[in-house]
Amino acid sequence: MTPEEFRVAGHALIDWIADYRSGLAVRPVAATVAPGEIRAALPAVPPARPEPFADVLADLERIVVPGVTQTQSPSFFGWFPSNAALASVLGDLASSGLGALGITWASAPALTEVEEVVTEWLRELTGLPPGWRGAIHDTASTACLVALLAARERASGGSLHRGGLQAEERPLTVYASPQAHSSVGKATGLAGFGAANLRQVPVDPVTYQMLPDALAAMMAADVADGRRPAAVVVSIGTTGTTAIDPLARIAPIAAAYGAWVHIDAALAGSALLLPERQGMIDGIEGADSLCWNPHKWLGTVLDCSLLYVRDPGELVSVMSTNPSYLRSSVDGEVTQFKDWGIPLGRRFRALKLWFHLRLDGVDAIRARLRRDLANATWLEEAVAATPGWRVLAPVTLQTVCLRHEPSDMVGPDGEILDGEALDEYTLAWVAAVNGSGHAFVTPSKLDGRWMVRVSLGAEGTEREHVEALWKLLQDQVRDHVGIGE
Amino acid sequence: MTPEEFRVAGHALIDWIADYRSGLAVRPVAATVAPGEIRAALPAVPPARPEPFADVLADLERIVVPGVTQTQSPSFFGWFPSNAALASVLGDLASSGLGALGITWASAPALTEVEEVVTEWLRELTGLPPGWRGAIHDTASTACLVALLAARERASGGSLHRGGLQAEERPLTVYASPQAHSSVGKATGLAGFGAANLRQVPVDPVTYQMLPDALAAMMAADVADGRRPAAVVVSIGTTGTTAIDPLARIAPIAAAYGAWVHIDAALAGSALLLPERQGMIDGIEGADSLCWNPHKWLGTVLDCSLLYVRDPGELVSVMSTNPSYLRSSVDGEVTQFKDWGIPLGRRFRALKLWFHLRLDGVDAIRARLRRDLANATWLEEAVAATPGWRVLAPVTLQTVCLRHEPSDMVGPDGEILDGEALDEYTLAWVAAVNGSGHAFVTPSKLDGRWMVRVSLGAEGTEREHVEALWKLLQDQVRDHVGIGE
Repeated sequence: MTPEEFRVAGHALIDWIADYRSGLAVRPVAATVAPGEIRAALPAVPPARPEPFADVLADLERIVVPGVTQTQSPSFFGWFPSNAALASVLGDLASSGLGALGITWASAPALTEVEEVVTEWLRELTGLPPGWRGAIHDTASTACLVALLAARERASGGSLHRGGLQAEERPLTVYASPQAHSSVGKATGLAGFGAANLRQVPVDPVTYQMLPDALAAMMAADVADGRRPAAVVVSIGTTGTTAIDPLARIAPIAAAYGAWVHIDAALAGSALLLPERQGMIDGIEGADSLCWNPHKWLGTVLDCSLLYVRDPGELVSVMSTNPSYLRSSVDGEVTQFKDWGIPLGRRFRALKLWFHLRLDGVDAIRARLRRDLANATWLEEAVAATPGWRVLAPVTLQTVCLRHEPSDMVGPDGEILDGEALDEYTLAWVAAVNGSGHAFVTPSKLDGRWMVRVSLGAEGTEREHVEALWKLLQDQVRDHVGIGE
Repeated sequence: MTPEEFRVAGHALIDWIADYRSGLAVRPVAATVAPGEIRAALPAVPPARPEPFADVLADLERIVVPGVTQTQSPSFFGWFPSNAALASVLGDLASSGLGALGITWASAPALTEVEEVVTEWLRELTGLPPGWRGAIHDTASTACLVALLAARERASGGSLHRGGLQAEERPLTVYASPQAHSSVGKATGLAGFGAANLRQVPVDPVTYQMLPDALAAMMAADVADGRRPAAVVVSIGTTGTTAIDPLARIAPIAAAYGAWVHIDAALAGSALLLPERQGMIDGIEGADSLCWNPHKWLGTVLDCSLLYVRDPGELVSVMSTNPSYLRSSVDGEVTQFKDWGIPLGRRFRALKLWFHLRLDGVDAIRARLRRDLANATWLEEAVAATPGWRVLAPVTLQTVCLRHEPSDMVGPDGEILDGEALDEYTLAWVAAVNGSGHAFVTPSKLDGRWMVRVSLGAEGTEREHVEALWKLLQDQVRDHVGIGE
């Protein structure tokens, strides 16, 4: 494709995206395809000759769009917000258009230095201590693995430079709440600690926060047993209920054993842009790393996950490589982000943050975050005030965990709604909500029972959309109970 | 930013990219900034209010562009090609515009199924065996780590579900050529094997290919010593000289020990689209995984690395997570790419491959790859035929390793050019080449001495650009020797 062909096709695609975003409110929110349906709609071999751009664009509209859950819809309340602010889309386009290659500072100094600048902007905005340094990773899963690898190497005194973890005699242990994200267990496994060395620290039964005293007792018992505590993962905003582990109480306990403290604030980090919410990370001075994802609530298009560390040297000692073909005369003076994570090759992802912050401005971003927090409070109060409905966990941010539990606890077929029956009832009405196409929410288990997470914060979600959702939930429940009557 | 503001700004950015790409030939190829210069040009805090798009675009032109090595220039011959075909840029823009979230199949069925289709297209085109399945990762570094983690778990019988690698009594070992990419050693360390358990298998002194007999001897000795061979990394196209390890002889040796065979074909994989080059992977039926990067020579914009495996089940058993909020009723019928690698959240990267293959067509892509191979042969012959110049390694693909070694071996200051002096001379004239702005090549060490890699394959590189480069190399050397006369 020549630049002139690109110009014509690019204008058409920009128009398509503008139209697509403008028309989101009337599309079904959930994807409406069956397994294999999209695969079957595509040819088995790619074309030998170029296809017209209009054909590709038509397939995008006809095949692809019905096959995605509309995360940009104002009625998307699933998982966590996954905003793709249009300002950041432009930054990402600029990155692709430039086609810059980040492998060393010298390969693209601007790629490195813009990343240094925007991560410093966000460090300051989110209230992280001066001196902490950040870099962009793809996701919080990767960032968590990187943090646990650094923790492993600290605890083992640099085992990777010797016989590896397999040469260690005293097992290293990792601590997290059972409410921590699935990536914590996964990273523990991948880093070689083993599932048997992941300790699930009990949580408060009401707030779902990690219990510091239980952590202290577990660590002491492990040490007495000849084990070495390597890391504590603190969840600031768990995936299930956005519970906020008490960092200020946890960090000193970890410090007594030299254990790495990693903070997973994948969702909640966006709220740190609000000074009134920075109390969530009180105790940060005792932590080693913090990850949050601008590609969630903040709205910098996927994939953009920030990992901040107190001491980059601890990452570099684990991640550094230095083959001859990557050396330059200025290596001692510059940041080499290749040594801060797993990949060597680096996309110019800083541009999407740069464009996003500059084109939207911090004031508007903050106003939107506050809007979402207020909407969550509104929904929490509406649910709590309505007979038969329960709010199941404290609403700390923008996620409301709820369930319909009719006062007589009798379901559509006259059964008593406890245990399995309540689960079936919940899953049935939430499937009806999502199947309606009018909104999308995520069912999730809490204390072993299914409930519904309403996670607010799509960019276009105004109060009216939350009100419509609340009406939809009640209507579906009413219809559903009605079926059995 | 509203859709209508996006429409206006997007058109301007598309035009800027089209103009930028059209004008690449006259820009300096190497970045022309000093450490810290870009950082100093940017404000210390982001704006509170939105900035005009024109200001951001002006900064892109004024600050960012001079700060990147122009990998899309027809005179870029550095590292490896890092093409960003404009058709793939459109696919990437479509991905950002959609803002789809890939976490499970249900979150975006099209994201999963288009990825299945395009990786199957490329499996067929590259001559991989039927049944092999591919997924997109960010880079080959990550793909290599994923492969070695799978190898570790196979060799340890699933240690991550128990006490982890640290509970294993017999050390696991990994084998690779010293010419293997730096990511192999890094992945060995991160996976917990330890540097002491990475075996560097000797290579042929002329071809730089791994010596199978040496591998067999090392593996036998390790087993006799109580160690367990876990993985062999076969480089199909090393970074230094594009040496091609003899897979057909290596795979049976690895098979005798049940060791995982991972093929790193990050650069060379693009050449597998040419049927006449598929002999490189003879013996593939004895391998377990193969990685190659469409974001290199093929030209699908960063980041796009393909990891194919013979048995996806071996990845899934290592990478799978299944929290309640990610479950759906069709989980048994669909592919869950979250269980094929490290990240949970997945960008719709398949779109850039889909757009690229459809809009450019396979015929044109193959023609371009063949053009580059012919250009490399032309340069190899020109260098070999010129007194004082040497080709240092077989030209197996599109990279020519060369050095100027004057017949009298006397440098600019009258010194004998061997050892350190030859190194200094080489680094000096290559710095002059890159400093000229007219082309960019990468110095690298081979057998302990600096040489120059000319890596062809930028999308715009025609014979005339290779001829101009060859003239530039000779002119710089002449000027350089002249200084000392």
